[in-house]
Amino acid sequence: MTTPSRVVVVTPNPAVDVTYRVDEQRLGETVRVRDVVRRPGGKGVNVTRVLTALGVPAVAVQPVGGAAGAWFAESLGADVDAVCVPSPVGTRTTVAVDDRATHPTLFAEPGDPQPAEVWDRVVGEVDRLAVPGGWVVVSGSLPPETPVDLVARLVAASHGAGARVLVDTSGAPLLAAAEARADLLTPNADEARSATGADDVRLAVDDLLACGAGAVVVSRGADGLLARTATGAEAEQAAVPGVSGNPTGAGDAATAGLLEALGADAVSAASLAPALRRAAVVAAAAVLSAVAGDADPAVLDGLDARLAPPPPTRPREESP
Amino acid sequence: MTTPSRVVVVTPNPAVDVTYRVDEQRLGETVRVRDVVRRPGGKGVNVTRVLTALGVPAVAVQPVGGAAGAWFAESLGADVDAVCVPSPVGTRTTVAVDDRATHPTLFAEPGDPQPAEVWDRVVGEVDRLAVPGGWVVVSGSLPPETPVDLVARLVAASHGAGARVLVDTSGAPLLAAAEARADLLTPNADEARSATGADDVRLAVDDLLACGAGAVVVSRGADGLLARTATGAEAEQAAVPGVSGNPTGAGDAATAGLLEALGADAVSAASLAPALRRAAVVAAAAVLSAVAGDADPAVLDGLDARLAPPPPTRPREESP
Repeated sequence: MTTPSRVVVVTPNPAVDVTYRVDEQRLGETVRVRDVVRRPGGKGVNVTRVLTALGVPAVAVQPVGGAAGAWFAESLGADVDAVCVPSPVGTRTTVAVDDRATHPTLFAEPGDPQPAEVWDRVVGEVDRLAVPGGWVVVSGSLPPETPVDLVARLVAASHGAGARVLVDTSGAPLLAAAEARADLLTPNADEARSATGADDVRLAVDDLLACGAGAVVVSRGADGLLARTATGAEAEQAAVPGVSGNPTGAGDAATAGLLEALGADAVSAASLAPALRRAAVVAAAAVLSAVAGDADPAVLDGLDARLAPPPPTRPREESP
Repeated sequence: MTTPSRVVVVTPNPAVDVTYRVDEQRLGETVRVRDVVRRPGGKGVNVTRVLTALGVPAVAVQPVGGAAGAWFAESLGADVDAVCVPSPVGTRTTVAVDDRATHPTLFAEPGDPQPAEVWDRVVGEVDRLAVPGGWVVVSGSLPPETPVDLVARLVAASHGAGARVLVDTSGAPLLAAAEARADLLTPNADEARSATGADDVRLAVDDLLACGAGAVVVSRGADGLLARTATGAEAEQAAVPGVSGNPTGAGDAATAGLLEALGADAVSAASLAPALRRAAVVAAAAVLSAVAGDADPAVLDGLDARLAPPPPTRPREESP
């Protein structure tokens, strides 16, 4: 593990994440909300929070607009390093309804289309902030009607600055990231299968590599992580055993763990196994956290100790 | 019916009402929101909208705060005459989840306590805006920790200005309104029973009159309206038959219809029956409306024609 350079995390479709605590989830009735928590959210924002908690320099880049966006920018800026690109489009909201007994219900607004000049400014910020040897992350959904070339532009701006790019999204933008030769894709198993049309997750990974991705790490929840690179390296990592709690945000924590472990290293046979192990440990910390997506660095060593020694990386590109 | 003077409508606990249209309501899953509608809400705001649509001069008075409050004030001011009292406390949100097939689920935030000086300013606005012979309406819930004397202060300010007061709330504030000698209370049947502890709605009405209310109109949904006055007048009004749709806001529309019909008249044996009839007709228009709580004046005559002639008011105070 080398000292990580600054990670630039782009969240194209940020949200004000609202959690309503209720006594009981019911349909078709008036449900009294006992307690309301609001915080700036979106997958990339969660990644930035965990990176910051891990001591990795990170900056969150996202468009914000309207009254919700003003609150978002002020509140996020108090927590992490953030660059908010002003937009005439209001920042969306998600509402999670949590009875602390059954699984929360999440209502996810789709967001509104952003004008082209906002995307120009977001790409410009990536060009300005990305550092040689560092990482750029593009994480989460895209707003409706986002131009298909946005992901390719973000990858190109990052590569132009000498940075590597991790893309964590789904559907057509995931394929676009592969075709733009993103260095690392981190879909979950459903997203990998759905974007490629492959029934089997390993076939889906191979499809993404064939499209042009440098490497793919697939999260399979309790079944752990699976990774392959375009050069033929492969690794698997079991999830930390005996961990239960709130899985919301565990994937974003895993992404932060991956980047912390990779540091300035390329994704290779040598770097992959320890990076997956760290991803599994940080994800487990997020599952244990009272606040969805947070990860307490103090519990990481104990979680790591629960894991078996990492399986050997199989550097198939070095085989005869 | 006389020409109505300006109605001052106080909403102590306004909200940004958000409606999420979804394909299907489900618990414990991520539900994609197809369409988002936001509008300024709270029972008194709904009353003001319907009064304005009916051509009755009305002004909405409420505390607003935070980014949501700024949006609320700007948006409400575009629709109706409004006086927003600035507060350091953020305006709450309600979220209605609507699949257009089953009954919507409503998540109602309780709101936050308001500082005393905000209530002083709200009472001051009532004192300033109320007109002799006009009505003041106090409608909806109170924020948590609201001083118990707020309703009495609002009633006193209204009476001091020569106006009559209608209070539409529940629980202890409903009893406080009766004790403060509010001219008219408009609970629904559940609220009347719950506040008084009476099993029967007629006994609940008598309890509220005995506490000091001038008159009580109880809405019983599809069973229509029931009214009694402290002077012994009584009237009932059936709901308009054959009307189905969204009952949200129908009670607020009924309140607006009552006030339109009463105009500058006192609540009496003579004014009660036509006022209840108008309330039933405007409520039916609200049920038919695509937007919860709106009422299209163009449909009112047709709905009125569906009603039987009003039952005779029984002026028991004039009996020997």
